[in-house]
Amino acid sequence: MTTIAVVTGNPKPASRTHGVALAVADAVAAKLERPAERLVIDLTDHAPRLFDWADPELTRLNGEVAAADVAVFASPTYKASYTGMLKAFLDRYGSNGLAGVTAVPVMTGGWPGHLLAVEVHLRPVLVELGASVPSRGLYVTEPELAGLDAAVAKWAEAAIPLITAAIKA
Amino acid sequence: MTTIAVVTGNPKPASRTHGVALAVADAVAAKLERPAERLVIDLTDHAPRLFDWADPELTRLNGEVAAADVAVFASPTYKASYTGMLKAFLDRYGSNGLAGVTAVPVMTGGWPGHLLAVEVHLRPVLVELGASVPSRGLYVTEPELAGLDAAVAKWAEAAIPLITAAIKA
Amino acid sequence: MTTIAVVTGNPKPASRTHGVALAVADAVAAKLERPAERLVIDLTDHAPRLFDWADPELTRLNGEVAAADVAVFASPTYKASYTGMLKAFLDRYGSNGLAGVTAVPVMTGGWPGHLLAVEVHLRPVLVELGASVPSRGLYVTEPELAGLDAAVAKWAEAAIPLITAAIKA
Amino acid sequence: MTTIAVVTGNPKPASRTHGVALAVADAVAAKLERPAERLVIDLTDHAPRLFDWADPELTRLNGEVAAADVAVFASPTYKASYTGMLKAFLDRYGSNGLAGVTAVPVMTGGWPGHLLAVEVHLRPVLVELGASVPSRGLYVTEPELAGLDAAVAKWAEAAIPLITAAIKA
Repeated sequence: MTTIAVVTGNPKPASRTHGVALAVADAVAAKLERPAERLVIDLTDHAPRLFDWADPELTRLNGEVAAADVAVFASPTYKASYTGMLKAFLDRYGSNGLAGVTAVPVMTGGWPGHLLAVEVHLRPVLVELGASVPSRGLYVTEPELAGLDAAVAKWAEAAIPLITAAIKA
Repeated sequence: MTTIAVVTGNPKPASRTHGVALAVADAVAAKLERPAERLVIDLTDHAPRLFDWADPELTRLNGEVAAADVAVFASPTYKASYTGMLKAFLDRYGSNGLAGVTAVPVMTGGWPGHLLAVEVHLRPVLVELGASVPSRGLYVTEPELAGLDAAVAKWAEAAIPLITAAIKA
Repeated sequence: MTTIAVVTGNPKPASRTHGVALAVADAVAAKLERPAERLVIDLTDHAPRLFDWADPELTRLNGEVAAADVAVFASPTYKASYTGMLKAFLDRYGSNGLAGVTAVPVMTGGWPGHLLAVEVHLRPVLVELGASVPSRGLYVTEPELAGLDAAVAKWAEAAIPLITAAIKA
Repeated sequence: MTTIAVVTGNPKPASRTHGVALAVADAVAAKLERPAERLVIDLTDHAPRLFDWADPELTRLNGEVAAADVAVFASPTYKASYTGMLKAFLDRYGSNGLAGVTAVPVMTGGWPGHLLAVEVHLRPVLVELGASVPSRGLYVTEPELAGLDAAVAKWAEAAIPLITAAIKA
């Protein structure tokens, strides 16, 4: 069994960003040889406790994500970077807390202008935590959300073979 | 009257990072022609409400910082970047929410290896919010904290003339 | 007399990027109290000698730019960052080689997607060299080039007061 | 046969940076199931022609690197980033010019302070060119050069399994 975690850091519940993250997880799952189990976390459900480092539920979730084979980390673009909410969850990890995880950074934005945030801001955090990020991240703009399947499929063509190869590493 | 705001995003209260931020504010105040008023915010005091965008106290604090002449934004280095806690406060601003503010990014870290986070991660967030960041940011390592005055003075020599000039712009 | 240097790192001579840099220099000059002298360098004229660190002409140009009050550094976007040509010129400086210079980073690109390169890639190089970068950088997309004056004017409104204040610092 | 390319962008010939890049290539080769062929390029040998986009030798070298299975791209740290020389070689590629290549970013620096340049500056260029960068990059400081084998071995433990898995993708 392969586990794919989805972690979305959007203050709005059930956001479109979360929808993109779930679509990415589905696209990865569809290409796996083994059936995949999904672990889905919408951080807004845990907002008031994110900075409480002793919170048992968040500690458990941190552990489950660290044990996943693949983890999709998704954020809307706030102030040309990832949200404080997503970073707050990642800050809870110790050094190399995502070692062994194949990570996929995903961001959404109103327009293309902040696209580089995926590679220069979000990916380095995941690499610092010891995750492998073998593919490009995915940045989806608001106009592209209407054709989300096409946007994900375009990204998936080059990205998913790299992700599935990394799982086996 | 010139107002200097200090905003520290460290989950630990009264942290050494907060001490560095206060020392930077003092160094700026000492070079102003007019007396300075200080506005000091330790975000850990507001942690459970940072993602509640209707919270009246945080909304008030956001407004007071935006009205300051100079604002020092300080964070320890977590995962090779600023904390989610600091970003959560900055995420509460609307577009160009720090226009007219002269901002000073400050970070502390265990070792020099993450020094560039000040310029490549924290500063771009402040620029995106419309602040002017005319000087280098300051990154202080743990060994340097023992001689904090010297570390701040070394940075201040080139930085503070640029900061005071920007206040008048 | 105030000196404004323009340095463009585009392999194509007399490029549109160079045109944007000149327009930025004009916009700054128009707001100065004193008349401005311009120093214009199109690096493509010096391409074969950029890595020859003993080249007397380039050494002279490096020195003249370092002595300018304001310097506009312009590059097209290549591979989501500044060009190797512009960086080659900047690499010739010693530590803090642009101390005392107020710098303006300018980039052009085919589309908005690489806009953040100005703040996360080009600006940190100028800051590392000791320059002050008090304003936002300017990123102009190909469609905006048709209305270049408007694009520059929009940027100039907030940027130029910060630049002129920094000159006097 | 697996091909490992080494491309070093250091104005000094036979630099220590080049030595680090060769050691990384050796470490990768030692873990391959098949024998590896090496393609070694010291860009300083081609400096005066790097901006001549019609140069036949450089065009050939660009093509050979793009056809390699693994490519190590190495640069000393100049002005807190990669060199203009390395970027000049990468700028010669068209869009997605390194698709299918597993890339390893390597930088050397006088001290740890610019370590993040590997992840925030060099890696995004390689990703933009379509390369897969599944492992952390390697940053080696001058004091570490004395024990280069140890520095490479420490990095290799987590990195090389990810690199060899990506080759097969």
